[in-house]
Parts: sequence; structure tokens; C-alpha cells
Amino acid sequence: MPRIHTLRLPLSNLSLFSSQSQKPRLNNNYRTMMNYTKAASSQAFKNKKLLFRQLFEKDSSTYTYLLADVAHPDKPALLIDPVDKTVDRDLSLVKELGLKLIYAINTHVHADHVTGTGLIKTKVPSVKSIISKASKSKADLLIEAGDKIHFGDLFLEVRATPGHTLGCVTYVTGDGSDQPQPRMAFTGDALLIRGCGRTDFQGGSAHQLYQSVHSQIFSLPKETLIYPAHDYRGFTVSTVGEETQYNPRLTKDEEMFKSIMENLNLPYPKMIDIAVPSNMVCGLQDLSVKPVDASSN
Amino acid sequence: MPRIHTLRLPLSNLSLFSSQSQKPRLNNNYRTMMNYTKAASSQAFKNKKLLFRQLFEKDSSTYTYLLADVAHPDKPALLIDPVDKTVDRDLSLVKELGLKLIYAINTHVHADHVTGTGLIKTKVPSVKSIISKASKSKADLLIEAGDKIHFGDLFLEVRATPGHTLGCVTYVTGDGSDQPQPRMAFTGDALLIRGCGRTDFQGGSAHQLYQSVHSQIFSLPKETLIYPAHDYRGFTVSTVGEETQYNPRLTKDEEMFKSIMENLNLPYPKMIDIAVPSNMVCGLQDLSVKPVDASSN
Repeated sequence: MPRIHTLRLPLSNLSLFSSQSQKPRLNNNYRTMMNYTKAASSQAFKNKKLLFRQLFEKDSSTYTYLLADVAHPDKPALLIDPVDKTVDRDLSLVKELGLKLIYAINTHVHADHVTGTGLIKTKVPSVKSIISKASKSKADLLIEAGDKIHFGDLFLEVRATPGHTLGCVTYVTGDGSDQPQPRMAFTGDALLIRGCGRTDFQGGSAHQLYQSVHSQIFSLPKETLIYPAHDYRGFTVSTVGEETQYNPRLTKDEEMFKSIMENLNLPYPKMIDIAVPSNMVCGLQDLSVKPVDASSN
Repeated sequence: MPRIHTLRLPLSNLSLFSSQSQKPRLNNNYRTMMNYTKAASSQAFKNKKLLFRQLFEKDSSTYTYLLADVAHPDKPALLIDPVDKTVDRDLSLVKELGLKLIYAINTHVHADHVTGTGLIKTKVPSVKSIISKASKSKADLLIEAGDKIHFGDLFLEVRATPGHTLGCVTYVTGDGSDQPQPRMAFTGDALLIRGCGRTDFQGGSAHQLYQSVHSQIFSLPKETLIYPAHDYRGFTVSTVGEETQYNPRLTKDEEMFKSIMENLNLPYPKMIDIAVPSNMVCGLQDLSVKPVDASSN
């Protein structure tokens, strides 16, 4: 059983690992893509809490996700996998929507683009960066399987999904009648739409990726929405049901999967030598504080 | 008052303009991004009918939208603004999701890419193409303001939004408790996220565009989701509330708007001489039948 940490940081005075228990407040058994400022006063939007936006960075085909609890008075928000180039766009949107950005989160140490988390922290110092402990990277909060990341009355659950890198995690919206339904899984590069991340760099392992996806993602309800870190063909979303049926790699048995992954013959990642060292320290190479463990990977 | 046409084509035997009245069947006062095959049997998905997918074509930054009524036994579906290059992707997805594609629809005669509607018809001959009568283009069905395009128990309402081109329309999901909430407006190039289409070609008019957006789109409920034909900065969706507050052009008065549009100094559209003649005939220039009115614009 994974150890359970609960990250519920007071919005006005951030501190780690408060033990305050989760108190469901509204019966919210459906999800919405949008829940606007005046939602709480509108019958049509009663109990709809999640504001969700998918954002795209074209050069690296990266998706950044903005999630916020707009039923909470502070409208606390988080960004998953922000990109350095699009930080200004993302922060403008956060401001326009009246949100309070509290977390900038990575699914893993990206090799194809520089994360925006460090840059965000220079512009909004109260934002806390989050990455997995297993990534051996520097961030304000290092999370592990079973941890929960709370924003208002909503939360993300952390699932360890190594294989593309050693430290890959998948963030899944909470289970429960007060959380968005269907659930949403932010899979990073572990599971892509009809594909998956490569396994030939950064401690990658086809065996490990196969086990991760099958045990941690395919075990979710079929209607769970899959939001990956990238798509190169213009898809924006998939579901567990679709990927278990149509993913051309992960529907195979493990031996076949490993054979596919060993024979991809992909070029050396063109950004890896810039992106990985930078992303080990939240995208800022010139941080004055030497990153913990950054030299060991 | 716009004349009301009702397009409710029997799925097995398509014919025009049946007068069958709309009969709300389910109390579906919320929307979902995804409603999977077994939805009807699941308590969590009861009454959720709309399957919705946003798809992106990177070269022209075009969004194609797939909508289907998955509570209907036939799972009837339509595509809005398909692109020729991505037709195989779109049709594969339709097939994998078990949908029956009945319409391929354009918001207008595009100048920046070739529509996929003609190509779709060569691959799935039962699909009917749709465009506005005002576009003076060739299609199976020519629609006007007030028409309704039914797919299963769901429908799109047609609103005339000229100004980018003479024949631009916006498709809005139906009003009513049995239709998706919030409503969704597919605005083509009339209204973009924090922008709008240019008005210096194809019968464009800044005056007309300003009037169109204010009277036909900004008059929708604030929570209405805006899904444009393009985005160049990585946004995927906006709302009427956001655009009435933050659109840098359309929040100005009309004189200022016209001045902005007259001074954009945009380059000549690089695809226009290929795309427009082709799109006047559903993207197929070599159709044996001479298109109606295609030579007049």
C-alpha cells in the first residue's frame, strides 16, 4: 500500500503536509469544462466547481493544464506541465479568470522543453513547485505515490507511473461524489493518445512503463479522461476505455510491447541536453541554491 | 424573425427538411466531454448524451469538432470544419468510437486551408455536406439563420455571423433542458479567443462583423463556451463572459473596432488562391458536376 500524504496547504500561509482531513462540502457528481465567476449564484451551475483549461505549446506539442476550484472563495488553481515559452499566456489567463495560482506541477523531468515552473515562481513567488521525489529534482514539494494535492475542495491523487523516466507520475482527479466525474488522468508521457513516451533515456524501461500503465492507469474506470503531456496528431483527449481498446502499443502483451519500444529507432532528443539539466531545477539553471541531487542523474 | 428550418434527417434514408417536431426525451441539463459506449447502463452517465472532441490541425492551426449523440441507438455524429489533411485521422476516430457520421459542416469558405468535407464524402458517401446559402458555395445542404441541424436528439442552431466573409455562420448547441449545458458556440472565424477573423477579403466588413458578434454571439449566456475555428496561441476554449470582458478588439466601440481592423497590415493570405476556389466546392476541385454559383464569388 502506498503511504498516504495529504498536501492541503492553507492558501494564505503555505506550509507542508497539514493533516486537516478532507471535508466534502458540495454534492458535485458531475464535471464541467468551465465554471465561471458567477457560477455559485446560478442554478445551472450549482455545485459545479472545476474550472478546467487545456493549453497547447506548438513547438514541443506540449499540453499545459489549468485546474481551479471556482466554488472556493479563493479560487485556488494549479498548472500541470507549464512551458517556459508560454508562462506569460498562462499567467494572464489565471489573472483574467480571477484565480489564485498556488501550484506549478510537473509530471516528470521533460526532455523536450523547459518547464515553466521556475519562471512562474519568479513572477508569482507564492506559487509552490511540485515534482516527484523519485525524479531527484529540485522543487518546493516532492510528492510520492498516494499523496493528495488539494486545491480548495478538489484534489489530485498521485500515482507513480515510471518507465518513460524513473520519476514519472500521473495525477488523477479525486475519487468521490464531490469530485469531478468522470475522473481525469494527467498522464504526462507515460500514456499518450494511441501511444506512449519513449523508454530509451532518463532511466526509461519498457518493462516498467508497461507495468505502470496497466496497473496505475488502465485500472481506472473506463470513462476516465486521459489528458497527456503531448499530442503530435491533434488529439486533445482520450479515455481509459479507448486506450485499453485501441492503443497500438499498450494493448499488446509485454514482450511485444518491449520489442516495439526497442525498435522505434527514434533520433536523439534534440532538446534533451538543454531541457533535462534545466528541468532538474524547475527550469532555472541559474538558481543560486545548488539543487539537491541534481548532479546524480 | 429568421425563418426556421428544421433539418432532421432520418438516419437510414436521408432526405431534406422533415417537419418532425423536436421532442425532448431525456432530462439532460448538464454536459459531458465524453460519453462512452456503455454510458446508458451506468448510473454516473445516465442522461449524458453528447460526445465531444476537439481536434487540431497544426499547419493552419485549425480546430475540427466532432459531436455525437451517443445516447441514440445510431450514435449519429457530425464534424465541424474538417481539414483535408486530417480526414483519415477524423474518420478513424469516428470508427473507433462506433459513431455514424452523418454531416460534414463548414462555418464558412476558409481561405487558409482546404476543407475536408469533399474528401469525407468520397470515403463515406452517405455523409451530407453543409454550408450556408450565403456563402454561395456548393454543398448537399445549404443552411440559413434559424435552421436547426439535428443529430439524434441533439441539435445545432444556425446563427448568421457575416463580416469575416459574407457567408459566415455560427453553430450553437440547442437551448433547452435536454441539450448540453452550458451551450457551445462554434464561431468559425467570426469570434476567435481574444481576437477575430480579418475583414479585408471575401466580402469582409468590419461593420458587419462587429454587429454579428455583438448581436448573435455576445447575446448568448455568459457561460456559453466559445469554440473557434482557429487558435494561434494554444487556447482551446473561451466563454462569452470572457470575450465580452477581455477580447481586445470586440470590447471596443464600433469606430475603434473598425480602425483596428483597417490597420492590421496583415500579409496576403498565402493559401487563399488555392483554398477558396477549392472550398467553394467542398474541397474537391475536380467534381464532375459544376458547382452552383461557384463562379460568382
